[in-house]
Amino acid sequence: MSTLPHDQSAGQRGPADHTIREQIVSAANEHFAKYGYGKTTVSDLAKEIGFSKAYIYKFFDSKQAIGEAICNQCLDAVLASVALSMADAKTPTDKLRRMFRAIVTASAELFFSDRKLYDIASHSVIEKWSSSTQYGDKIYAMLEQIIVEGRQSGEFERKTPLDETCRAITQAMQPFTNPVMLQHSLDLLPDGPNEVISLVLRSLSP
Amino acid sequence: MSTLPHDQSAGQRGPADHTIREQIVSAANEHFAKYGYGKTTVSDLAKEIGFSKAYIYKFFDSKQAIGEAICNQCLDAVLASVALSMADAKTPTDKLRRMFRAIVTASAELFFSDRKLYDIASHSVIEKWSSSTQYGDKIYAMLEQIIVEGRQSGEFERKTPLDETCRAITQAMQPFTNPVMLQHSLDLLPDGPNEVISLVLRSLSP
Repeated sequence: MSTLPHDQSAGQRGPADHTIREQIVSAANEHFAKYGYGKTTVSDLAKEIGFSKAYIYKFFDSKQAIGEAICNQCLDAVLASVALSMADAKTPTDKLRRMFRAIVTASAELFFSDRKLYDIASHSVIEKWSSSTQYGDKIYAMLEQIIVEGRQSGEFERKTPLDETCRAITQAMQPFTNPVMLQHSLDLLPDGPNEVISLVLRSLSP
Repeated sequence: MSTLPHDQSAGQRGPADHTIREQIVSAANEHFAKYGYGKTTVSDLAKEIGFSKAYIYKFFDSKQAIGEAICNQCLDAVLASVALSMADAKTPTDKLRRMFRAIVTASAELFFSDRKLYDIASHSVIEKWSSSTQYGDKIYAMLEQIIVEGRQSGEFERKTPLDETCRAITQAMQPFTNPVMLQHSLDLLPDGPNEVISLVLRSLSP
C-alpha cells in the first residue's frame, strides 16, 4: 500500500538504519539520564543529536518508542543476569531462589546506579509499555518452567492449578520485582525477598 | 517545666478543645479532598475555617499533624471493618482469609470513593507517618495472633520462626494491602489477593 521507497518503510531497515537507531537510543539514554524522561521532548533530543525532529520520527514513532528501546536494553540486561545466575542451579528449588534473587539484585543495582533509567523502567510498568509487559511475560515463562519441572520431579505439589500457582507467586514477589514497588521496599533487602521466597517454597511443598 | 496555663499545654486539652480539633480536622478533610493535600497550606486552611493560622498551630504542630489525624480516622475505619468481618470466623484459616479480604475491600473502596483521601493515606505510608506505622503495627499484631492461634490448634506449621512467618506474609500481601502498591494492582481484584491468601495458607500447612 505504501508508495515510499523500500528503505523508508518502517520495520525493514538495513544495517545503516540500525546504526542510526542505536545512535538515537544512546543519545536519548544520556539525555534522559541528565534531564529525566518526563521533561525531555523529541525536539530536545533532535537538538542534542544534531538531527532534525522529522529525521528522528523516521526511526521512532514517538518519544515512548525511544523510551521502550531503552527499557528493552535495560530489562534484557536483567534477564541476562537472571539466566546467568540460574545456569548452574541443580534443583527447581534452587532455581526459584536464584531467579528471584537475581531479579531483585539487578533491579536494586539499577535503582542505585542509574536512578533516571530506573524511573523510565517504572514508567514503563505503570503505562504498561510493551517492553515491560514482554519482560513480565518472560519472567512468568521462566517461573512456569521451574514449577513444571518441580512438579515433574515430585519436589513441588501438584494439586493447585499451575496457572494459579504461577500467578500467586508472581503477585507475592511484586514488592521486590516490580520497580514501582521495589523502591518502597529497599530497606527490606536482602532478608525481605529471601523470606518471601522461603514462604513461596513452603507453599510448594507436596 | 512549662509555664503555660493548663489549657494551653499540648495533649491535655478539655472537651471544648477536643471539639475545636475535630472542627479543624473536618474542615481540613474537605479542603484536602477538593484541592489535594500537597497543594494546601495551613494558611489556606485557616482562611477556609475562619481561624487565624496561629490559632490552628495551638492545636496542631504542622499540616502533617492534621494529615495524620485525618489518616487515623480513615485507617481506624479500615481496622473497624476488619474486626467486624472477623467477628464470626470460626478457624484461624477463616480469620486469615477474612482479615486480608476486609483490608483489601476497605482500601479499594476508599480509593474509588475518595481519591484525595486515599492519596493522603499513600503519602502517610511513603513518609512513614506515625498514623501509618501504627496501622501497620496493628495489622501485624492481628496477623500474629491468628498465626499463634493456628499453631496452637495444629492448623498451621510451627517450624518456621513466628516472626519470619509474620513478616513474610505481611510482605507477600503488600501489593494488595499497601495503598501505594494497591493502586497498581486494582485490575487484579478480587482474584489476585484471594490467590495470594491461598498460597499463604498452603505455606502454613503443617
